[in-house]
Amino acid sequence: MISRNKAALIISLQKKKVRDEEKLFVIEGDKIVREFLEAKVMVKTLVALPEFLNSLTLFHKQGIGEIIPVTENDLKKISSLKTPHNALAVISMIEPIRDPDDLKKELTIILDCVQDPGNLGTIIRSAAWFGIKNIYCSGDCADVYNPKVIQASMGAILHVNVTYTSLPELLESARKMSIKIYGALIEGESIYSYKLGSYGIILLGNESKGISGELLPFITDRIMIPKLTDEQHGIDSLNVSMAASVILSEFTRGKGRAF
Amino acid sequence: MISRNKAALIISLQKKKVRDEEKLFVIEGDKIVREFLEAKVMVKTLVALPEFLNSLTLFHKQGIGEIIPVTENDLKKISSLKTPHNALAVISMIEPIRDPDDLKKELTIILDCVQDPGNLGTIIRSAAWFGIKNIYCSGDCADVYNPKVIQASMGAILHVNVTYTSLPELLESARKMSIKIYGALIEGESIYSYKLGSYGIILLGNESKGISGELLPFITDRIMIPKLTDEQHGIDSLNVSMAASVILSEFTRGKGRAF
Repeated sequence: MISRNKAALIISLQKKKVRDEEKLFVIEGDKIVREFLEAKVMVKTLVALPEFLNSLTLFHKQGIGEIIPVTENDLKKISSLKTPHNALAVISMIEPIRDPDDLKKELTIILDCVQDPGNLGTIIRSAAWFGIKNIYCSGDCADVYNPKVIQASMGAILHVNVTYTSLPELLESARKMSIKIYGALIEGESIYSYKLGSYGIILLGNESKGISGELLPFITDRIMIPKLTDEQHGIDSLNVSMAASVILSEFTRGKGRAF
Repeated sequence: MISRNKAALIISLQKKKVRDEEKLFVIEGDKIVREFLEAKVMVKTLVALPEFLNSLTLFHKQGIGEIIPVTENDLKKISSLKTPHNALAVISMIEPIRDPDDLKKELTIILDCVQDPGNLGTIIRSAAWFGIKNIYCSGDCADVYNPKVIQASMGAILHVNVTYTSLPELLESARKMSIKIYGALIEGESIYSYKLGSYGIILLGNESKGISGELLPFITDRIMIPKLTDEQHGIDSLNVSMAASVILSEFTRGKGRAF
């Protein structure tokens, strides 16, 4: 049985303002809740159907702040999903641990105003797949703790650091370190023939406007994914998360199964 | 001013059953409506704000069955979007024109139970980008005329034939023609080292279950996108539309800008 206050808190966490104030966010669904329990991140509250709770081992339950068994009806009331799953958890926001040298050693993704939560979530998921550790976002990107982002990321936010920051400042410091900044543009060199480095920054822009004017001067290498069609009125761009995946594939394709 | 009957018809077209009966579907938004007008497909009814209608040329208006100017309020009532754009059009379903020899000459995508409309729409968009002409879907895939599919495809349904059919029959006839059937699986050969042909079938499965058991025997070439991470509890798959894009990129990467 969940108290009225706790239910109200969980519902209010659907708002970014409340999430930021409370430093808490909500995850939903069997698979993702299990992954968070296994990853031993700070699970403050676990709200779930009795059958889900019964399926957990002692290892899973260790460290959970509070466990609340509920009925399907109660779960539905606090869920952000049309069809709620069997479990929901309130998680303390994780402060990313970043190595300042990562920019010089790793491929890093920088997102300029990627606003669609589904796109951000899928980019995080692909980034995790291709071994990317760090994503930096402009303040006007979708919020990583938005339920739709978490859902689309399929738990990948456990494996990728997502940081909101001033992109001009970040790119300026990258420039001082002579780090390559690959900008994904409509006009650029084909990623298939261009020499892509083993580290550097991949900069991707907004869904309809692309990379904003103030960031363009930071780009050192203009790249693009060639379009294979002769249709005059064909589509004029790839979805940004598709572009991210194809570019990551191309940057890492020589590496095979790295581990 | 739109009649009550016409408004009711447009709203009812949000249902697949009605779309199939009437052989009509609805598109929404400035950009996509313009593309359909330019492509000269059969626009039965155009419902739009006066400013949109004023921006059209005579060329755009040729062949439109009926043009209905409306207020923002009226548009909102018939729209499937939370924030409707300035135009909506009712389109006659297009019977795809297929060359039976395409299977032997082109890369073809076959989707087995891809259920998320956003995924199907994005796959169509990526397919159009990479020059794919034909996509075949099992009957339990999302409906190509679902408003969410059309939205995610960004007009690409104008450039790609999407056909619903029995996949075992289609794959059986492909087998008889000795066409390679590349199945995207968790366990397979890395797409980066495998020799990929210039034509053949790329078979992709359901978002959580993958390719169904009855189709597995048809696969001649098992391929996969290697995961670049050592996380034990890392994500276990790429989103299907990401996988489609990366695979299409890899199949076509030698081709550069073909036209």
